Amino acid sequence: MSLNSFGHLFRVTTWGESHGPALGATIDGCPPGVPVEPADLQRWLDRRKPGQSKYTTQRREADAVEILSGVYEGRSTGTPIQLMIRNTDQRSKDYGDIAEKFRPGHADITYWQKYGIRDPRGGGRSSARETAARVAAGGVARAALNMLLPDVKITGYMVQMGPHPIDRTRIDLAEIDRNPFWTPDAQAVELWAGYLDALRKSGDSVGAVIEVAASGLPAGLGAPVYGKLDTDLAAACMSINAVKAVEIGDGMAAAALTGSENADEISMGPDGPIYSSNHAGGILGGISTGQDVVVRFAVKPTSSILTPRKTITKSGEATEIITKGRHDPCVGIRAVPVGEAMVACVLLDHVLLHRGQVGDAGGRIG
Amino acid sequence: MSLNSFGHLFRVTTWGESHGPALGATIDGCPPGVPVEPADLQRWLDRRKPGQSKYTTQRREADAVEILSGVYEGRSTGTPIQLMIRNTDQRSKDYGDIAEKFRPGHADITYWQKYGIRDPRGGGRSSARETAARVAAGGVARAALNMLLPDVKITGYMVQMGPHPIDRTRIDLAEIDRNPFWTPDAQAVELWAGYLDALRKSGDSVGAVIEVAASGLPAGLGAPVYGKLDTDLAAACMSINAVKAVEIGDGMAAAALTGSENADEISMGPDGPIYSSNHAGGILGGISTGQDVVVRFAVKPTSSILTPRKTITKSGEATEIITKGRHDPCVGIRAVPVGEAMVACVLLDHVLLHRGQVGDAGGRIG
Amino acid sequence: MSLNSFGHLFRVTTWGESHGPALGATIDGCPPGVPVEPADLQRWLDRRKPGQSKYTTQRREADAVEILSGVYEGRSTGTPIQLMIRNTDQRSKDYGDIAEKFRPGHADITYWQKYGIRDPRGGGRSSARETAARVAAGGVARAALNMLLPDVKITGYMVQMGPHPIDRTRIDLAEIDRNPFWTPDAQAVELWAGYLDALRKSGDSVGAVIEVAASGLPAGLGAPVYGKLDTDLAAACMSINAVKAVEIGDGMAAAALTGSENADEISMGPDGPIYSSNHAGGILGGISTGQDVVVRFAVKPTSSILTPRKTITKSGEATEIITKGRHDPCVGIRAVPVGEAMVACVLLDHVLLHRGQVGDAGGRIG
Amino acid sequence: MSLNSFGHLFRVTTWGESHGPALGATIDGCPPGVPVEPADLQRWLDRRKPGQSKYTTQRREADAVEILSGVYEGRSTGTPIQLMIRNTDQRSKDYGDIAEKFRPGHADITYWQKYGIRDPRGGGRSSARETAARVAAGGVARAALNMLLPDVKITGYMVQMGPHPIDRTRIDLAEIDRNPFWTPDAQAVELWAGYLDALRKSGDSVGAVIEVAASGLPAGLGAPVYGKLDTDLAAACMSINAVKAVEIGDGMAAAALTGSENADEISMGPDGPIYSSNHAGGILGGISTGQDVVVRFAVKPTSSILTPRKTITKSGEATEIITKGRHDPCVGIRAVPVGEAMVACVLLDHVLLHRGQVGDAGGRIG
Repeated sequence: MSLNSFGHLFRVTTWGESHGPALGATIDGCPPGVPVEPADLQRWLDRRKPGQSKYTTQRREADAVEILSGVYEGRSTGTPIQLMIRNTDQRSKDYGDIAEKFRPGHADITYWQKYGIRDPRGGGRSSARETAARVAAGGVARAALNMLLPDVKITGYMVQMGPHPIDRTRIDLAEIDRNPFWTPDAQAVELWAGYLDALRKSGDSVGAVIEVAASGLPAGLGAPVYGKLDTDLAAACMSINAVKAVEIGDGMAAAALTGSENADEISMGPDGPIYSSNHAGGILGGISTGQDVVVRFAVKPTSSILTPRKTITKSGEATEIITKGRHDPCVGIRAVPVGEAMVACVLLDHVLLHRGQVGDAGGRIG
Repeated sequence: MSLNSFGHLFRVTTWGESHGPALGATIDGCPPGVPVEPADLQRWLDRRKPGQSKYTTQRREADAVEILSGVYEGRSTGTPIQLMIRNTDQRSKDYGDIAEKFRPGHADITYWQKYGIRDPRGGGRSSARETAARVAAGGVARAALNMLLPDVKITGYMVQMGPHPIDRTRIDLAEIDRNPFWTPDAQAVELWAGYLDALRKSGDSVGAVIEVAASGLPAGLGAPVYGKLDTDLAAACMSINAVKAVEIGDGMAAAALTGSENADEISMGPDGPIYSSNHAGGILGGISTGQDVVVRFAVKPTSSILTPRKTITKSGEATEIITKGRHDPCVGIRAVPVGEAMVACVLLDHVLLHRGQVGDAGGRIG
Repeated sequence: MSLNSFGHLFRVTTWGESHGPALGATIDGCPPGVPVEPADLQRWLDRRKPGQSKYTTQRREADAVEILSGVYEGRSTGTPIQLMIRNTDQRSKDYGDIAEKFRPGHADITYWQKYGIRDPRGGGRSSARETAARVAAGGVARAALNMLLPDVKITGYMVQMGPHPIDRTRIDLAEIDRNPFWTPDAQAVELWAGYLDALRKSGDSVGAVIEVAASGLPAGLGAPVYGKLDTDLAAACMSINAVKAVEIGDGMAAAALTGSENADEISMGPDGPIYSSNHAGGILGGISTGQDVVVRFAVKPTSSILTPRKTITKSGEATEIITKGRHDPCVGIRAVPVGEAMVACVLLDHVLLHRGQVGDAGGRIG
Repeated sequence: MSLNSFGHLFRVTTWGESHGPALGATIDGCPPGVPVEPADLQRWLDRRKPGQSKYTTQRREADAVEILSGVYEGRSTGTPIQLMIRNTDQRSKDYGDIAEKFRPGHADITYWQKYGIRDPRGGGRSSARETAARVAAGGVARAALNMLLPDVKITGYMVQMGPHPIDRTRIDLAEIDRNPFWTPDAQAVELWAGYLDALRKSGDSVGAVIEVAASGLPAGLGAPVYGKLDTDLAAACMSINAVKAVEIGDGMAAAALTGSENADEISMGPDGPIYSSNHAGGILGGISTGQDVVVRFAVKPTSSILTPRKTITKSGEATEIITKGRHDPCVGIRAVPVGEAMVACVLLDHVLLHRGQVGDAGGRIG
């Protein structure tokens, strides 16, 4: 049992602090023969990298990943893969105040109360910088999925910034890579840009909702009743910094539906069952249906803001805090590639689990 | 690794099918010396028991729990506790149709596609009947929590039925036990009763939202970064049948907040830090703050309904299905004690984990 | 994590005490479609059953196994299999003394020191009666192995009783079922019978060495570097009551060999590599070679004897103890089917793990 | 589940290959506040370091450990500790032959058969070089034990080289650090030196037996019935390269004892129970008694030898192999600090487990 790990057969352990020498991911259980090159991983890391637009933290990190083990001549060997990313831009002086004062809404206070010691530089282990290791691991998961199930495609995008949701009728996945918000609604971009710019200048921050959809999956992935595919997706997404809610398919909205509305009716297609709708988000009873798996999560606003907030010091004295330094006004933006990475890891894990526990015993229809 | 288990140190494995001879929970890691009597567990099981009002399934099950191991002279011994509940009212004939036809929105089809064999009687392992075992295990968790942290109180209640939420200004926890919906809003009862009665008579069903609040917790429970308290709560709740979303604190609504709105400001109270609000739901960075832990989850409507839906047979032929038998028009009602049980198990688990990994090293404030 | 469980994908949790109402095994991860009938399991349980000869305890237990879940129409469904064996012959009065006095060489004292509470009746959880559950689970593992790899054969036998080893040149596996000691050396039987009879009459007991060999395995099972096949076999065997040592292949004797003696030379056979010898016990680097896997373990003598031994009471007073009741003079005899069961479980587990993590990526030779 | 990890609450994952850029250990679950400095870890690594006498491989590795995470201002923070050791002396040309030919007695063939790909340089992941990471992790475990239980002392030593055991009446622990074999029998040194020198010159190798004793432990560590202290010790030691057998206390010799001989009689000492002997090796029923925990393991001879052995190539052709390069004539020598490290990790793990699962509920005597 490791509380800094996730996954069953494809098991990822992340390590490292925001301002330590390095951070990374120890991956156990990657199948042998997967093509794993630094450049392939870098492609995903570059999406999460800070400092790419004025809407993300201005910290400058190359986020260059080194592969220290488990890969021989460009292919995985089945042994643990160690991915390391050096921290290069640690301006610890930016964070002087937070060693003594607790930021409201931040883990400063709970780490202190739990451990009695913490690395305060940049939030230490609780920094969103930890998610760089997730993205690197997700790159390995994608490569393995691509080898085993080449039709699988995992796409993350932002569907709400602050109070402003996208218009779902305008979703065009091709738009995602064309704007700094990873949104599939081209018309949302301008609105969001103005809104976020104003917030940033006022020293405030805002939350967001991210959606990740995976297509091309077979039916049968997932394992009742606590290793369900949706259980593991919920855990994976909730473990991301600042996430406060996770939805599968219709999510919270499913509560308002009747059974007759919620039923995704089934008919027979050329390659198997097809469904009239996807309220279920591609998962029934914890097992994939073969439809798109759809997961959504809400990211709260960054708690490191320039607006002064009331708080206390370690010695219990009342004070105020404003957090200088280089922070994301909407940390949800960089959560998009992180969500994709987590979904990739969970899906690969369940592909391996299914292969191990069930093999090809699954039932045919028709 | 067991995919039918949850918990780290307090580990619960449930087993059993809806219409097999029995179902139950194997509990490993219960501390020694906990008072565990069948009557104490029965108290919680009776809350989940079917057939208690016209709003729940009319299946008649005593749900009497037997303790087969791990308890000596009324106290846990530290060895595995086996809890068994016999199935007594299995009218398999009620379910003839579903052996050949797949219910839309139900796990019938995915179990078949995954395993190539399934127990179709009453949904087999995918039946909500499995949650009886969770409630029994939750009773043990509550008893252990009560021994270790007597101030902890865990309360579940329904906050939305179908499209009808409660009015939060009217919440009165004393109301919960006075109505068949476990709702703290007395004025919601009449509305919901009429709404559900009409639905039931029309052969339809509806979803719900359940909230569970835990008070009296210490700060410091939870473990970064994948064994977070909220991660484990999300997984525990998402693993409950029919759950499609989980929220902590403000949940999805946190996305719409600014950082200055979302910050729960901190001041010093007589016994430690106190907070101006609880947007965080009692958890920061995956670790408890000492405020109430608040988790909410959405339950989709039962898919076993009398309204005919289009589907296919195992041989791929188009057909329609209506599900006779004795089903819950709003399965969310009986999810209330289940949610409480899952929260109790997760909290106890983290109390034990914290004791093991950290002991009393935690930091003081003031 | 459960400390009463073993296995990775095929995970067995045993529960129950010697004199409680029942004991059993919760099995998670059995593949679907495996033929599992009570009679098949009973066959193995009957080999371990007490009271079959004058050389084993005279306690009378039917050891009848009930399958409570996970099996539908005679085949496993992929969901947890619950196996229950009721205790029927609990003469608690036989054990009056041991509630207050600690038996030297027994777990009475350590359970008390650890937990502060224990079920003293028949040794409670520390009784070898727990191994009945292992044998039942082993029956399921054998059935699954038989489905997946029909050539695999697992055979346990006794190779030493007290100071009397067998003569390995006389090994004839056909003899094993023809004597009460499960020994393959027919000439050892008479000697052992006389030796054990004398010991039994004098109120003493003795140890033994058990060997289990598995043939028909493919190369490639096992996983470096802590989930090695031999690591898991060592853990599985050492977890059996009274076991004090585990050997693979040449075991302790390997220490005395030179590298040139120890090397099992390789040549090419019609179906793959063949080896000139099997010092390695069928495992190199934690991975099976395809040769017979050979594991051996030493069982210490039963500590419940009629010879008076010095000990203390719970209140620390000096006293003597003799243990009446119905005990095995050589508990190693009944450890033979237990060892087989553990090996079967470990092998199946690694078959599933290999399928999940590696699939058919393994390398060919020739 | 990670197959390259061990431990329950104190969980160590090693990674890295013999000739890759680096290897290391990812440690999760180290309690906060433990003093962890590179120099403290280096002290243990230096004991295992190659090239220290003519009796170990002449490979030159500094084995300098870097702490990349989890430590702040010299103390552990409770977050994952990443320890990295760079490989600096990789003469891959030494190993040309073994990419195509399989060394008898080595994992070359099984890795190939399992994975279909392997890093052949220096044995890749199957090299004993992996144990450097274990020793580094063991250093952290020792520091944590020292903080929690300062009386615990863990001492490893060699008790047999090839066919030459020590004389146990001459054991003097003070001798261990005074000879290159870590033996407590001063008179064995000369004999072993001559024996090993002759073997080395003849291009052969030999096995050994290592014993590790831990004193100063409390009673009550360990957890029935599969997380037993001896089960975990057996697994930990069997996972070390080249180990073929593990014994606790009297080990294999216990088979030859009668119950009256084997019983460690109990009397009351000034600080609790004392025992007349320690056949049990400090463990009863999987739980520590408070006596010295004694574990012993046999290491087979290195399979990389200069004596030609018959083998086959990857294409199945018959050939001979001699392994040049820089190998240990008795790899058991360097297994001494590795055994100590594994025992330290297992003991710490069980200290944490006991604290978490049982707390101070243990029973008093007297």
